[in-house]
Amino acid sequence: MEETLQKMDAFFNPCSVAVVGATKKVDKAGHVIFKNFATNKERGVFKGELYPVNPNETSILGFKCYKSITEIPGEIELIVVIVPASIVPSIMEEAAAKKVKTAIIISSGFREVGNKEIEDQVVAIAKKGGIRVLGPNCLGVYYHKTGIDTLFLPETKVLTTGEEVVATPRPLPGGIAMITQSGAFGVAALDYLTGRQMGVSKFVSFGNKCDVSESDIIHYLLYDKETKVILMYIEDIKAGREFLKIAKKVTAKKPVVVIKSGRSSAGARAAASHTGAIAGSDKIYDAAFEQCGVIRARDMEEFFDIAKALAMQPPAMDKNIGILTDAGGPGVMTVDECEALGLTVERFSEETLRKFQELKDQNIILKIAATSNPVDLTGSVTDDMFVMAADLMFQDPKVNGIILLGLHHMPGLREVYIDGIKKIAENYTKPIVMCDIGETEMALYTRSRFDRLGVPSFTSPEDAARAMKALVAYGAYLQKEGHAEQYMDTFKKTSTPKS
Amino acid sequence: MEETLQKMDAFFNPCSVAVVGATKKVDKAGHVIFKNFATNKERGVFKGELYPVNPNETSILGFKCYKSITEIPGEIELIVVIVPASIVPSIMEEAAAKKVKTAIIISSGFREVGNKEIEDQVVAIAKKGGIRVLGPNCLGVYYHKTGIDTLFLPETKVLTTGEEVVATPRPLPGGIAMITQSGAFGVAALDYLTGRQMGVSKFVSFGNKCDVSESDIIHYLLYDKETKVILMYIEDIKAGREFLKIAKKVTAKKPVVVIKSGRSSAGARAAASHTGAIAGSDKIYDAAFEQCGVIRARDMEEFFDIAKALAMQPPAMDKNIGILTDAGGPGVMTVDECEALGLTVERFSEETLRKFQELKDQNIILKIAATSNPVDLTGSVTDDMFVMAADLMFQDPKVNGIILLGLHHMPGLREVYIDGIKKIAENYTKPIVMCDIGETEMALYTRSRFDRLGVPSFTSPEDAARAMKALVAYGAYLQKEGHAEQYMDTFKKTSTPKS
Repeated sequence: MEETLQKMDAFFNPCSVAVVGATKKVDKAGHVIFKNFATNKERGVFKGELYPVNPNETSILGFKCYKSITEIPGEIELIVVIVPASIVPSIMEEAAAKKVKTAIIISSGFREVGNKEIEDQVVAIAKKGGIRVLGPNCLGVYYHKTGIDTLFLPETKVLTTGEEVVATPRPLPGGIAMITQSGAFGVAALDYLTGRQMGVSKFVSFGNKCDVSESDIIHYLLYDKETKVILMYIEDIKAGREFLKIAKKVTAKKPVVVIKSGRSSAGARAAASHTGAIAGSDKIYDAAFEQCGVIRARDMEEFFDIAKALAMQPPAMDKNIGILTDAGGPGVMTVDECEALGLTVERFSEETLRKFQELKDQNIILKIAATSNPVDLTGSVTDDMFVMAADLMFQDPKVNGIILLGLHHMPGLREVYIDGIKKIAENYTKPIVMCDIGETEMALYTRSRFDRLGVPSFTSPEDAARAMKALVAYGAYLQKEGHAEQYMDTFKKTSTPKS
Repeated sequence: MEETLQKMDAFFNPCSVAVVGATKKVDKAGHVIFKNFATNKERGVFKGELYPVNPNETSILGFKCYKSITEIPGEIELIVVIVPASIVPSIMEEAAAKKVKTAIIISSGFREVGNKEIEDQVVAIAKKGGIRVLGPNCLGVYYHKTGIDTLFLPETKVLTTGEEVVATPRPLPGGIAMITQSGAFGVAALDYLTGRQMGVSKFVSFGNKCDVSESDIIHYLLYDKETKVILMYIEDIKAGREFLKIAKKVTAKKPVVVIKSGRSSAGARAAASHTGAIAGSDKIYDAAFEQCGVIRARDMEEFFDIAKALAMQPPAMDKNIGILTDAGGPGVMTVDECEALGLTVERFSEETLRKFQELKDQNIILKIAATSNPVDLTGSVTDDMFVMAADLMFQDPKVNGIILLGLHHMPGLREVYIDGIKKIAENYTKPIVMCDIGETEMALYTRSRFDRLGVPSFTSPEDAARAMKALVAYGAYLQKEGHAEQYMDTFKKTSTPKS
């Protein structure tokens, strides 16, 4: 591994951590963060050395407290800094003296409020001392496996009724890396991903990115075996050329999905006062993302939907989509959205049409069913019909991916077809996504079961179409750049859905 | 009430119902529908007379069975017909002889599969006999209050595990009327609305609409006190001029939100084979909807989101929106979406800016908080700050509506502000919508509590912005047509959120 990547690794796998600004005061970020580490160490998740640093304490949560970093006997790989901005430069001087590898500066009060000078000072000291700095003005890192957890927002809250409820949950392990310039959006994303049972490999909130930038992080994640898809929220990119170069390297192997906010002029103004971002022309961002294969989501829901599709399914190798439904109206909605997104829903090949006709002749599917694409098996659908039809569609060389609308309301449909669809899909390298509409038991069950089997489920026809569109766009990019074959090989080896 | 409306009323409030094609066979639609009525009668919900009609039975579920409609001793207001298409004309002859007012023809096998002649026959007989016909090829009516329930899809299903789960639920009573050309989309909508706790006033699936059209139904709903917002799924409109005239009358008093599918050429082809719809140019539909004040949703999620906003909040009287947040990133995303939708997020009036400065001077809100619009109270937000800031924003004459981003993750925020916001909002006639991001306990609690108080909550910044856009669009339409004042008067009188 290159030296720069090795150093980045100390953010996620440090042998020793000092929490500078650790405190006993229960409502302080310095307490919450130290306690996260202490608890994770106790549980055997965090296996490194842990040192609280605070000149006013002798011990915190049973750990011997040090007056300064330099007093700590052993080596320190990572420091987490939660002290007022004005003191941070002196802390960094000590860290440099101690040969610390990495620093997460949680504190705010830097460039984002006009204190450019202190931030510049921190950067200069870090550079001289060879320390990589994440932040300032950030939430830092969450990595389930090594117990790195610098999130200081309360995991639960107690309502006025006396009930304790989950407020900022930690997600399950999984293939999605979430990196973000906005801490608030970051924890909101963790909350969303947790609730939707989408697993996270690494979480990084990088705030003002005075040193470590989105480019550094995605470069590190390129080599991270646990990460299959990278989700990125940004308000600006400072070193554009570097980003293009690195992103291009990353997207050859892993999809990168971005929300770039500050699109509008008022939005750019708001972003400037938020993270000091200079948003720049939105069209330039569009062009840059396209050039380096980064997929831009147009809104939050699409952001997560695309991530789910790319994490579970292979990309589509062309843009003609087969639609399979038991519900006419939602079928039409799906066709509409596909065409609006530049996908096509063409008539099947003659052979496929013939095979469907045979099924009709044998009374296996209804004579009145539409079977030229979309396939509408009507309210008379059964589990078997769905599976058979999907198989015929997968076989059609003109079909590059399938959108399945499995509306569970139809009387003849049970949940049996779900496993059947999964089994059929395994025989092909084409993507499949599904939609069931509804927010009560059977809809929730159906979607959750499909998700668990690695067939991404969506709550509306349009969401399913948008997810498929991302699979088509990423497939087109990989082919254009000549990476498709290698990507598919890796994808097949690493896709292991739970059952 | 006009005679035509009075007749329409027999679909929802019939004194007597005959179910033609009622049967003892448990998996038949004729059984499910008759049982719905029988159960509702037993429970005292359906208060009318109930007659099963089937020449091969003497009694069904304890009710005396009649060989034909004409044999029934009393008057019949509504017949529900579930017999093969070929027999339907003779049933209609009998119904005409019996002076039946209305018929719901559930059966399919008419125009949608090429049997135009039978459908024409049915229409001719109905016209001569003065019978209004809903359908054929439809799911008919669900009306909680009188127990009319012709939905034949299974309410629950038993999974292979032996567990019984809700499959096609019946929604709570509420202000949303759902009318639909696609039965499958209709039940999916009921499933969605039930799960999201959005109440329904009337549900009508009208299928082939051989007689009763969307125009007839919205005309009836115009006078329906329980309906506040009309949701409509259509694939075509046959009598365009009539629709324009009636819709214009309706939208002066009640918002109408539409999904018109078959937008694309492939979508239109799919719609044609689904309900025999002739989709026509999509641009003409766009223009027509705009002219008559019908709000067109661009996808399913927006469809329901708009309905929720319009059911709970007054329209906005201009397009400048105030944004109040505790999360910078999501704030920027909201501004972006507002501008993309043609809304503005302008700097507050000088007076408002001054008042915010006073709060800063008094250390009531943070000095670094952005307060010129958007207002970003930052992670240091407290319940009180949110309520005070919302009040100042409501007072600004330049602010026509507020989008509140109440991300619950911030340490100082509890759920106390929710009631505070509601209380403040009651003093103004401007709309407010809110967003909290997350899918675990506190996010679900926050959104649900706002909903119960009549402040519509959304799961993403963009969804909240789109809902506000609908409130702005409807407000603009009402003002252009001179209906705004009267609408607001009625709105104030009828809005009674639960607490």
